[in-house]
Amino acid sequence: MTLNSRIEKDSLGEMEVPADAYYGIQTQRAICNFPVSGYRARPEFIRSYILVKKAAALTNQELGVLDRVRGNAIVSAADEVLSGLSGQYSDQFPVDIFQAGAGTSFNMNVNEVLANRALEILGRSRGDYSFLSPNDHVNMSQSTNDTFPTASCIAVIFAADRLIDVLASLSEAFQAKALEFSRIPKSGRTHLMDALPVTLGDEFGAYTAALLRASGRIEERRNDLLELPLGGTATGTGANTDPEYRELVISKLSELCKLPFRKASNSFEALQSRSQLAAFSGALRELALELIRIANDLRLLNAGPTTGISEIELPAVQPGSSMMPGKYNPVMAECLDMIGFQVVGNDTAVAFAAQAGQLELNVMTPVITSNILMSISLLTNYLPIFQNRCVEGIKANEDKCRAYLELNPILVTFLTPKLGYLKAAEIAKEVLDKRIPVKEVLVMRGLLSKEEADELLKIENLL
Amino acid sequence: MTLNSRIEKDSLGEMEVPADAYYGIQTQRAICNFPVSGYRARPEFIRSYILVKKAAALTNQELGVLDRVRGNAIVSAADEVLSGLSGQYSDQFPVDIFQAGAGTSFNMNVNEVLANRALEILGRSRGDYSFLSPNDHVNMSQSTNDTFPTASCIAVIFAADRLIDVLASLSEAFQAKALEFSRIPKSGRTHLMDALPVTLGDEFGAYTAALLRASGRIEERRNDLLELPLGGTATGTGANTDPEYRELVISKLSELCKLPFRKASNSFEALQSRSQLAAFSGALRELALELIRIANDLRLLNAGPTTGISEIELPAVQPGSSMMPGKYNPVMAECLDMIGFQVVGNDTAVAFAAQAGQLELNVMTPVITSNILMSISLLTNYLPIFQNRCVEGIKANEDKCRAYLELNPILVTFLTPKLGYLKAAEIAKEVLDKRIPVKEVLVMRGLLSKEEADELLKIENLL
Amino acid sequence: MTLNSRIEKDSLGEMEVPADAYYGIQTQRAICNFPVSGYRARPEFIRSYILVKKAAALTNQELGVLDRVRGNAIVSAADEVLSGLSGQYSDQFPVDIFQAGAGTSFNMNVNEVLANRALEILGRSRGDYSFLSPNDHVNMSQSTNDTFPTASCIAVIFAADRLIDVLASLSEAFQAKALEFSRIPKSGRTHLMDALPVTLGDEFGAYTAALLRASGRIEERRNDLLELPLGGTATGTGANTDPEYRELVISKLSELCKLPFRKASNSFEALQSRSQLAAFSGALRELALELIRIANDLRLLNAGPTTGISEIELPAVQPGSSMMPGKYNPVMAECLDMIGFQVVGNDTAVAFAAQAGQLELNVMTPVITSNILMSISLLTNYLPIFQNRCVEGIKANEDKCRAYLELNPILVTFLTPKLGYLKAAEIAKEVLDKRIPVKEVLVMRGLLSKEEADELLKIENLL
Amino acid sequence: MTLNSRIEKDSLGEMEVPADAYYGIQTQRAICNFPVSGYRARPEFIRSYILVKKAAALTNQELGVLDRVRGNAIVSAADEVLSGLSGQYSDQFPVDIFQAGAGTSFNMNVNEVLANRALEILGRSRGDYSFLSPNDHVNMSQSTNDTFPTASCIAVIFAADRLIDVLASLSEAFQAKALEFSRIPKSGRTHLMDALPVTLGDEFGAYTAALLRASGRIEERRNDLLELPLGGTATGTGANTDPEYRELVISKLSELCKLPFRKASNSFEALQSRSQLAAFSGALRELALELIRIANDLRLLNAGPTTGISEIELPAVQPGSSMMPGKYNPVMAECLDMIGFQVVGNDTAVAFAAQAGQLELNVMTPVITSNILMSISLLTNYLPIFQNRCVEGIKANEDKCRAYLELNPILVTFLTPKLGYLKAAEIAKEVLDKRIPVKEVLVMRGLLSKEEADELLKIENLL
Repeated sequence: MTLNSRIEKDSLGEMEVPADAYYGIQTQRAICNFPVSGYRARPEFIRSYILVKKAAALTNQELGVLDRVRGNAIVSAADEVLSGLSGQYSDQFPVDIFQAGAGTSFNMNVNEVLANRALEILGRSRGDYSFLSPNDHVNMSQSTNDTFPTASCIAVIFAADRLIDVLASLSEAFQAKALEFSRIPKSGRTHLMDALPVTLGDEFGAYTAALLRASGRIEERRNDLLELPLGGTATGTGANTDPEYRELVISKLSELCKLPFRKASNSFEALQSRSQLAAFSGALRELALELIRIANDLRLLNAGPTTGISEIELPAVQPGSSMMPGKYNPVMAECLDMIGFQVVGNDTAVAFAAQAGQLELNVMTPVITSNILMSISLLTNYLPIFQNRCVEGIKANEDKCRAYLELNPILVTFLTPKLGYLKAAEIAKEVLDKRIPVKEVLVMRGLLSKEEADELLKIENLL
Repeated sequence: MTLNSRIEKDSLGEMEVPADAYYGIQTQRAICNFPVSGYRARPEFIRSYILVKKAAALTNQELGVLDRVRGNAIVSAADEVLSGLSGQYSDQFPVDIFQAGAGTSFNMNVNEVLANRALEILGRSRGDYSFLSPNDHVNMSQSTNDTFPTASCIAVIFAADRLIDVLASLSEAFQAKALEFSRIPKSGRTHLMDALPVTLGDEFGAYTAALLRASGRIEERRNDLLELPLGGTATGTGANTDPEYRELVISKLSELCKLPFRKASNSFEALQSRSQLAAFSGALRELALELIRIANDLRLLNAGPTTGISEIELPAVQPGSSMMPGKYNPVMAECLDMIGFQVVGNDTAVAFAAQAGQLELNVMTPVITSNILMSISLLTNYLPIFQNRCVEGIKANEDKCRAYLELNPILVTFLTPKLGYLKAAEIAKEVLDKRIPVKEVLVMRGLLSKEEADELLKIENLL
Repeated sequence: MTLNSRIEKDSLGEMEVPADAYYGIQTQRAICNFPVSGYRARPEFIRSYILVKKAAALTNQELGVLDRVRGNAIVSAADEVLSGLSGQYSDQFPVDIFQAGAGTSFNMNVNEVLANRALEILGRSRGDYSFLSPNDHVNMSQSTNDTFPTASCIAVIFAADRLIDVLASLSEAFQAKALEFSRIPKSGRTHLMDALPVTLGDEFGAYTAALLRASGRIEERRNDLLELPLGGTATGTGANTDPEYRELVISKLSELCKLPFRKASNSFEALQSRSQLAAFSGALRELALELIRIANDLRLLNAGPTTGISEIELPAVQPGSSMMPGKYNPVMAECLDMIGFQVVGNDTAVAFAAQAGQLELNVMTPVITSNILMSISLLTNYLPIFQNRCVEGIKANEDKCRAYLELNPILVTFLTPKLGYLKAAEIAKEVLDKRIPVKEVLVMRGLLSKEEADELLKIENLL
Repeated sequence: MTLNSRIEKDSLGEMEVPADAYYGIQTQRAICNFPVSGYRARPEFIRSYILVKKAAALTNQELGVLDRVRGNAIVSAADEVLSGLSGQYSDQFPVDIFQAGAGTSFNMNVNEVLANRALEILGRSRGDYSFLSPNDHVNMSQSTNDTFPTASCIAVIFAADRLIDVLASLSEAFQAKALEFSRIPKSGRTHLMDALPVTLGDEFGAYTAALLRASGRIEERRNDLLELPLGGTATGTGANTDPEYRELVISKLSELCKLPFRKASNSFEALQSRSQLAAFSGALRELALELIRIANDLRLLNAGPTTGISEIELPAVQPGSSMMPGKYNPVMAECLDMIGFQVVGNDTAVAFAAQAGQLELNVMTPVITSNILMSISLLTNYLPIFQNRCVEGIKANEDKCRAYLELNPILVTFLTPKLGYLKAAEIAKEVLDKRIPVKEVLVMRGLLSKEEADELLKIENLL
């Protein structure tokens, strides 16, 4: 042992730990075992896990199974670490997101940090686990198996709430554009082909609706996560907990998180199945599919400036090309596409993990949690920027919209109740061949007077 | 033209159609254009589509845009075809599920069959479209763009309702086993390793809970589908419909289907986005992931008979091997696994299709609908068999369960509140080395008297 | 037992079988156990499996373990069934593609049909298995575990060879268009925005190259499948086979199939892993992703006719809309998209199945095989139609191509070596603002004489 | 402008850049536009991109289009940055992996760093782009569109080569175990049920074979990447390059990277399609599926210690449970599973991105590249640890293996050539009912003498 390390012991033997680390031997083992991605737990997950530990310590005290001295020290340690997550304790959770199944490595990391800080608070040395042990005291009445998915649910709820806010704001931005563009008629396009007219505002209003719907589904799946596995300990039976523990710890945790948690309706299913998280991930996927679709629409409507549709103009936020001067690309929408693809990919990882549960436990929870939190993070970080630097600055090219509409042969559809489909198709063909407006053909053919044609095909009447 | 064909005409020109076909020229074109899979629309989808046509004809009559003669004939034709779907009309819907984008081919197939039967009812020849036209009369106030997704939603609801029933029954079967096995203690296993005890009933009860949860999510997404695109026609504006049409046709359709449909809250989003169907598919995926997990658990618990866990015995339904006599494999659970994989795969096809919508329309709806209906069909066909031939016949091997539990070293966990984790780990090691029960080691070590040990580790107290 | 049935017996007991069925009791059990999809084995798979049986019977005879009488009868039965697959024997393989793990049901189906036909040839009754048994004689030296994946490999090779031919033809069709369009300059588009010019032929030539590359990867993975599991019997040891059996049966099978098969380099991996088939499926996925991309490009270039890019015109193959007259949609390309999505979805099912192998066997092979064969079938059926009815009829809209190019501000890029990027960007801005050609701005600004500008920006020099 | 910043200008206007940054205005814009994931380009990708820049500068000099002064400065800058990537320049590439489509942001980041360092070398200030410009000089003869995928290919090759080495080593470790366990007979298991015997070595040898096969497929797809888009510039035409540029720059780059690059066979396909990278990702997926399968097998064989198969023992690397003392879980294999799921998920993101190419370019390359490099990194970081801390320490539980085999009823299969399947099935049933070895039943039934039975069923003869 050097000056810079201390020796700790666990059931496998002894090992050196950095002297100034709050984490201990089992974290150290995880550092050695799992140098995989370099990505560590996100702050919201660490925070959620510590809140679980705090709730458990308060509950254990109240039920008389944890003495006041140790209990208070653990609670104080939890509070300190919570407030120092981006400071003093920011480097105390070094466990990789790819780690031991079930997340034992990370649970022990949290247990060790709290135990060691509690020991210090009590005037003892780090590592003096015979007095206050990560397993026996911090982890009392708990198992990784119920705490890890509990912390996952809480962290996902925290993150989801930010995402839901972000989506509300983004859909408002689209709605503002819908209003702004509500009087701009344009050719609709189905199959990418000329179709009946809509307004540009109709299109943007539909994006608003799509986002709100996607957000609503996310919220439904978020609410499911209020049902927590906590209290089931290792296999769902609640072994080694007081009979009143489960209710009480859920109630404490609800207070700490200001969220109306409830206990698992089936404590065994709560450990063996990760379907609630997988379904949440599925709701993110549905959002991603809509974002991809909308981003692609924006790119298509913006295409040009001279050789594409160009009905809208996305704000230029950076020179588009290293080689081609004067080129401004729809880079914000492209980035959104790529984020969408990643969210869909992350969801696939979740799906594989969800089906891999076996018997009493799905040990693949860490990869489920990290993928969901990554996906939400990408969206929550980017969507406000996308809103601000792309959506809010979109301009309509009203002249282009009207010019397209003028020559759209499909306007003849409005004559079908009168002429029938087959006859109308002939007129459409003539419109297209001659590249003149439908109404002119109608007048030329003597089917309508100019006034009738103007009135019947007045754009405002068609929408 | 031969004796066996008639000539029909559409806006592209003339073509021969089999003389005895109710379908017409556009169906014939689709037969030539799309000889892809050989799979045709499922009866529930045809039925749903015809109900849409009937509701539209009734509504058009009521609004005075369709005369009584033609209207009544279309309604009668619809009723006849509905009742002859598995008989006389079973071969009248030959369009492949892979077809024109948006499903135009299939919509025209329905329009043509109804038009031609209506013409016959009116004493006219098939193909006499100048009198009663597939486009102008049967398709009046409609577009493929609003009717195809409407029929998709209805068909999926019909199918989903059967699936929800099937899941209710299957979860009851698991619940019956949960009760039957509720007094059979056994070793829990987490990470596939010896863990704290549960009962065999706990495991089966958790499967019940998982299935009900999956079913609940499917029902939520099923309910979303009650909101129908119908009335938006080609681009969501409701072009060429009476102002009262949308409300009225939804109301007629609700009566016909006995389902409380409502109109789309945003008629543009209702055409451009297929997220409601994609999210339904996602809910099927979550079910599939749970079924895969449960099937795998059953296979694992049944493994043996001499070299595996063998805590349960699945019924033998066929000799398991062509080569190895006396081998009975868990084939029903294996088939369920494969169905689960297919459902997940089908859902991937749906996801790709959902993101591919462009501007006013997602033309990929046909592949979305066919995949969802296939997935439901696989599940609805098989799960009752799986229930009957597998779940209901599962027997517990109680002796095996108890024997495993006897030597499970992890029972020492119950001593940790007294001994602490580290000391308990030593005892577990001794239990394992000597292959004797935990309680014997406790007595040998003088930690407990035999009576105390028996009492403390009495299985019934541990659960 | 009725007149229309016979009683058969297997190790589970007795059961009625239709009197006129060549299949027997185990097939009958599978019919009852697995009424899942209604989809049955594809002819190429049945054919491949029978060829395996024939090769085994010939080998067993040659090695003296199967007597000539029974051996010859089995071989004759195999030949008869092979030639009657689309006739007399077409209904003798009723096992659903979703069936017992490993495909035992289907292997026994084949064994039973051959046994019963062989019994008839020998003047005995169907079901007289004590004389000639599906298990002991037809299945001699074989297990489902080595024969099912062997037949899968062969069937996939047969199907792949058709697909590779189809792809060769399709890429020739694109190449013909590449030549036809090789002198049509047009604006390139990157990020959907105006970019440096290319020819329309360049685009089509790239599609050719993409298809050939995808085909090449399929061929590589097809060649891997020449390595067959056959001879490993149940667990890879070749139990119950003559030491010379494996080499000999592979050689016989090579002759029968006219394919250079080789034995598995590791007979255990050959049973436990389905990675060769999964990787083949992956190669299909890569093809599908390219087909989706190309179909989308064609749809985009064809968009219009008045409101989109319209640089090409896809042939009209059916009226595009039930409601909008004169609308012709790119339905052939849309159908290709949907097929592409299905292939990608099927590949996901395969991936889940591939990871689900356990110990000596991956029992999920049936769902792997059926998905691959379905995907190839969709492609092989449709691509020739797509070639004929879409690709070969594509027309260029050369005027549109040139008109776009005329006003493309990005042509200024050719001046950057002289002016630098920043200066050139200013010119591009002016081009865009004034909607006049680049060369006019250059002349106006006195940067080039008209002659220099014409020469420098002569389209032919830019490509 | 503060003391700590300088002002730079691009075609969009002016912006402040940190005074000490080597990157410039366009990088700064990207920092503002894309604060998405916090993940930056991996060093191997930065290195590859700089090598492309160096090769281009050397080529441009040699072709006389770039003067020696600037050219030498760029080359020197490239060399310096390459050697300072983990030091002085480590924070000079702040662009997020989610960024502008095509990767323009990152290309400009590289151009700016090299330009500014080159300016310094020439005694000029950073930002003095009128003398030496990121676009005009560093990016000369290049576009993001050809350089980004080129750098991607190179980086993937660099990474793949490490992975292939890692896989070679891991398969050797499995092979060493295959040898060590080659004389340990055990029950085979198919469908998780008792089956014909194999040796434990057979199983491990199959894992070796599976890994080598997966590695071989990766190598094939790696070799495809030697064909580089470089020289096509923006749309594949090679605009603004000297006619000899393409050949020469590929040759320079080959020297610099010591890799036999070749130019794209179709320079248009090389920009519009990312199928080569997608197919590489697919090969990673196939590896992942095999690793998942193998990890699951190891976990299954290790299950226990008292209640599972326990034929092998994986090394204990950390206490398995926070709650259950004495529990050691197969955490290394579990972590491998989770990595496998991630690789499969990342591959899904790649697949979505690959199908999203449009016309001259697939702008989704950044998300393709980052997912592939992440997947390889996870595998390359972890597999050596997995080898060292798991595979190499696996111990066989030979007694357990033999004990299972002793009572395996399926050994009766060896009697089928003599007794027939049906009779043998009866014996298997008796073996199972009485839980005695097959050979005892054979002797009891008078079918064989004890000597014959011993000889026939001598384990060594069965393998």
